[in-house]
Amino acid sequence: MLLQRAMIPRFRQACRLKLVPSRLCIQACSTNDSSQPQYPSLAFSGDNSSTRGWRVMGTLLGLGAVLAYHDHRCRAAQESPHLYTREEVRAHSSPETRIWVTLGCEVFDVTEFVDLHPGGPSKLMLAAGGPLEPFWALYAVHNQPHVRELLAQYKVGELSPEDKEPFTLKTSDPYSDDPVRHPALKVNSQRPFNAEPPPELLTENYITPNPIFFTRNHLPVPNLDPETYRLHVVGPPEGQSLSLSLNDLYQFPKHEITVTLQCAGNRRSEMTRFKEVKGLEWNTGAISTARWAGARLCDVLAKAGHQLCETEAHVCFEGLDSDPTGTAYGASIPLARAMDPEAEVLLAYEMNGQPLPRDHGFPVRVVVPGVVGARHVKWLGKVSVEPEESYSHWQRRDYKGFSPSVDWDTVDFDSAPSIQELPVQSAITEPKDGETVQSGEVTIKGYAWSGGGRAVVRVDVSLDGGLTWRVAELDGEEQRPGKAWAWRLWQLQASVPAGKKELNIVCKAVDDSYNVQPDTVAPIWNLRGVLSNAWHRVHVCVAP
Amino acid sequence: MLLQRAMIPRFRQACRLKLVPSRLCIQACSTNDSSQPQYPSLAFSGDNSSTRGWRVMGTLLGLGAVLAYHDHRCRAAQESPHLYTREEVRAHSSPETRIWVTLGCEVFDVTEFVDLHPGGPSKLMLAAGGPLEPFWALYAVHNQPHVRELLAQYKVGELSPEDKEPFTLKTSDPYSDDPVRHPALKVNSQRPFNAEPPPELLTENYITPNPIFFTRNHLPVPNLDPETYRLHVVGPPEGQSLSLSLNDLYQFPKHEITVTLQCAGNRRSEMTRFKEVKGLEWNTGAISTARWAGARLCDVLAKAGHQLCETEAHVCFEGLDSDPTGTAYGASIPLARAMDPEAEVLLAYEMNGQPLPRDHGFPVRVVVPGVVGARHVKWLGKVSVEPEESYSHWQRRDYKGFSPSVDWDTVDFDSAPSIQELPVQSAITEPKDGETVQSGEVTIKGYAWSGGGRAVVRVDVSLDGGLTWRVAELDGEEQRPGKAWAWRLWQLQASVPAGKKELNIVCKAVDDSYNVQPDTVAPIWNLRGVLSNAWHRVHVCVAP
Repeated sequence: MLLQRAMIPRFRQACRLKLVPSRLCIQACSTNDSSQPQYPSLAFSGDNSSTRGWRVMGTLLGLGAVLAYHDHRCRAAQESPHLYTREEVRAHSSPETRIWVTLGCEVFDVTEFVDLHPGGPSKLMLAAGGPLEPFWALYAVHNQPHVRELLAQYKVGELSPEDKEPFTLKTSDPYSDDPVRHPALKVNSQRPFNAEPPPELLTENYITPNPIFFTRNHLPVPNLDPETYRLHVVGPPEGQSLSLSLNDLYQFPKHEITVTLQCAGNRRSEMTRFKEVKGLEWNTGAISTARWAGARLCDVLAKAGHQLCETEAHVCFEGLDSDPTGTAYGASIPLARAMDPEAEVLLAYEMNGQPLPRDHGFPVRVVVPGVVGARHVKWLGKVSVEPEESYSHWQRRDYKGFSPSVDWDTVDFDSAPSIQELPVQSAITEPKDGETVQSGEVTIKGYAWSGGGRAVVRVDVSLDGGLTWRVAELDGEEQRPGKAWAWRLWQLQASVPAGKKELNIVCKAVDDSYNVQPDTVAPIWNLRGVLSNAWHRVHVCVAP
Repeated sequence: MLLQRAMIPRFRQACRLKLVPSRLCIQACSTNDSSQPQYPSLAFSGDNSSTRGWRVMGTLLGLGAVLAYHDHRCRAAQESPHLYTREEVRAHSSPETRIWVTLGCEVFDVTEFVDLHPGGPSKLMLAAGGPLEPFWALYAVHNQPHVRELLAQYKVGELSPEDKEPFTLKTSDPYSDDPVRHPALKVNSQRPFNAEPPPELLTENYITPNPIFFTRNHLPVPNLDPETYRLHVVGPPEGQSLSLSLNDLYQFPKHEITVTLQCAGNRRSEMTRFKEVKGLEWNTGAISTARWAGARLCDVLAKAGHQLCETEAHVCFEGLDSDPTGTAYGASIPLARAMDPEAEVLLAYEMNGQPLPRDHGFPVRVVVPGVVGARHVKWLGKVSVEPEESYSHWQRRDYKGFSPSVDWDTVDFDSAPSIQELPVQSAITEPKDGETVQSGEVTIKGYAWSGGGRAVVRVDVSLDGGLTWRVAELDGEEQRPGKAWAWRLWQLQASVPAGKKELNIVCKAVDDSYNVQPDTVAPIWNLRGVLSNAWHRVHVCVAP
């Protein structure tokens, strides 16, 4: 991971140098057959944001020796392709022997690119000496023209005729077993599946119906057998490890609470409008609320013999979703929160009175009230207590906030804490941006929520871009002090001032620590586009 | 209290009607001998903010019948004053007999004003039938020309010659016994004493020296004998009440922590610049940090037999400072916080290794880490567990936040939660606003803090008003997770961009829940001027 971080700046430099020659080269030798124009997008870990900025930099910056070198190699490959057997390719699987991969019938020497791979060198090394297809099937973000263009620069030859039959996977598509989804969901990424409910459905119900609860997957959805499912809980040295079946989990006292989950990337699209970020283009819907039931994590940890003696320890979670290397999705929370009965951390097996849907972690997921969605690990396989935070990519190299001044050349992921509690948030779900409303009365609706169990105590709404404010009416369940895990829906009936042709509707919430949302996006912009909680703004026209 | 709240709108209306006639009237009949121009200021509870807004409203709004009535009475009193004995005045002490008071040799019928008294009718009723002097001595805010002007309207006569000798108090000045203060303190109010250290001293030391620790008193400082001091801890029905001497308190395990205290009104002056508020004109110095030692409140409560069974109960504190009615300063915190050993609430008897200074609560004060200063009750006399929050004025009718749209005509104090945890805060202490800095390098210093034990994880500083940002270096003690009770000092060495003639320096902090400060003051403005945590801005010139 350290390697990956160190390499990102070099990768950026490489892009600046390579993008232009690759676009020239592609006309001669690329296997790209898509005529649809697309922007370069090299986001990793399932992120598919477009990165116009890179292309611009690529066209702006000079070419130099690297260009000449690749241009030469590209032309050479085009003129008389070398032929290699799969056996020969397999022999090139380390920096010493150089690193080759295949795609279709083409052979590429990616030695120079390994360290620049946005997903990390280790991920690319998994394919060393063999075909890329199984990995591209998993990380569908690769299947784009600009990635093929980039790869084309590294072509060194083609497979021998006898080895040319395309590589076949037993399961060519690791996502083929993903569940069927509700058509109302607005899909931000199919593989892995990431989708949000449309705003007008989002605040129809205080409890979000399971089929339209926002879905944030990082990997394919595992298909787990509830009969053979076991949760492994690592005990302390003096304690006992547990292997819990679903029935075992049912024996713990059943605890039920209403909890809102929010992705750290909710409302990222507003940051993107200011300046490009890496990440899924969430609108206001990466947030939903359910009634969760399960065993309290503190009870399960206590059963395994854990105590809150090491107050700075962490509880690490591993999902049963994994990439081809077997690396599972992982995350952690502080042990102090995990062991606190008042924090009500659940190993949930029910969502709104139903077994968890597969997209939401069947049969068991973690629910960490008041904490960013990324820690609510789904398809939970393992729980352990560790002296440090999870070493997972998603704990240490993602889901962190940075100053607007930090870019991919300067970012130091170790300098920022992993996101746990989220800041105060609110958004308008009705009317929609660009809509035309009738003159007379307008109804404005939305949601508001804050992290850490802090209750939303007020939502201010403005019709004039923030010059004057009215207080919205809060709906939803009463909140227990310090345990306001769920959102408040709100609404305001307001008269449209006579003669107004348009309204700049704004909302901002206040929580019971009296934290407020910042006025504007730019000063909280960050390279991953997380923590987007500036005032939400909607511009509408008024029908004459 | 409910009465007082209900009366405030009426009081506002009355002011609008009365201010203009009173200013005309004063030239003829007021006892005012001050030639210094002052704005009307009718703030209560020791607040002495000027309230230009009221004057403006008074001059803008019409006069009507009330004006005519008072004008008539004022002229009548001037022409041939009635003479009354003190005995006769004393007979007018209820609404039925009408309510009279004296000031000097003048007699006033304040029946119509009682319900409009900003400090509440009950406070004014204490003086019914007698002299105002003992109360004005306590609440020095009354000793201002505009208050005398207001009073002059109600003059009905003068004291008989035999009763004309001025009223003398045994102790004419309840503040005469207040301790001597450090001359560096910038005094916002002498009676009660409220003062802050100058910014350049504030961040000289991570631990604020006791003599310049900001002081927020609501009443005169009691002079308590440590030998006879007793803390009364009310036990539960099945438990035992305790009467603890200082020596008894010393028997509990001594707990020592570094805690920053901040007044809810810190940085109020920035709100005032936008629009008038009621409150002391704090700059950036109503915040300081000390090392506090004492018994943990949870240990003392447990000794009295309290348990955390009623999770929504509150622990009420009463100070030994009190007004002439014996009403003590009071406040409360949730029982859940009080009983939580991790919340580290102290009954502190040491401040930076010394017995508490008298201004800071000698011999015992409450210290509630992460919570607004108003709950850290000084000169602690009584602790009790109650089903509801303290009924103290300062818990229910003050120290709450409201929407910018709420004014004194519309405020409903019951609609907002009492301030407990404070939002994320930061300020620049160097350079000072208006200063001239040298070209080349500039050093920017300040503090940052957040409520609820949330650690400050980053401070962004801008030299161009918020367009671009740099990350400041954080100094100060390492914080324990979830227990970041103390501030971080920070600094940034920055090059002044060549050719710049001025800098708009801005700072903003981020805490570990990733809450941020709002960009601007106006949208968080509130009628009491609390929770002023917008970006702090300092404008400096650059020496050519």
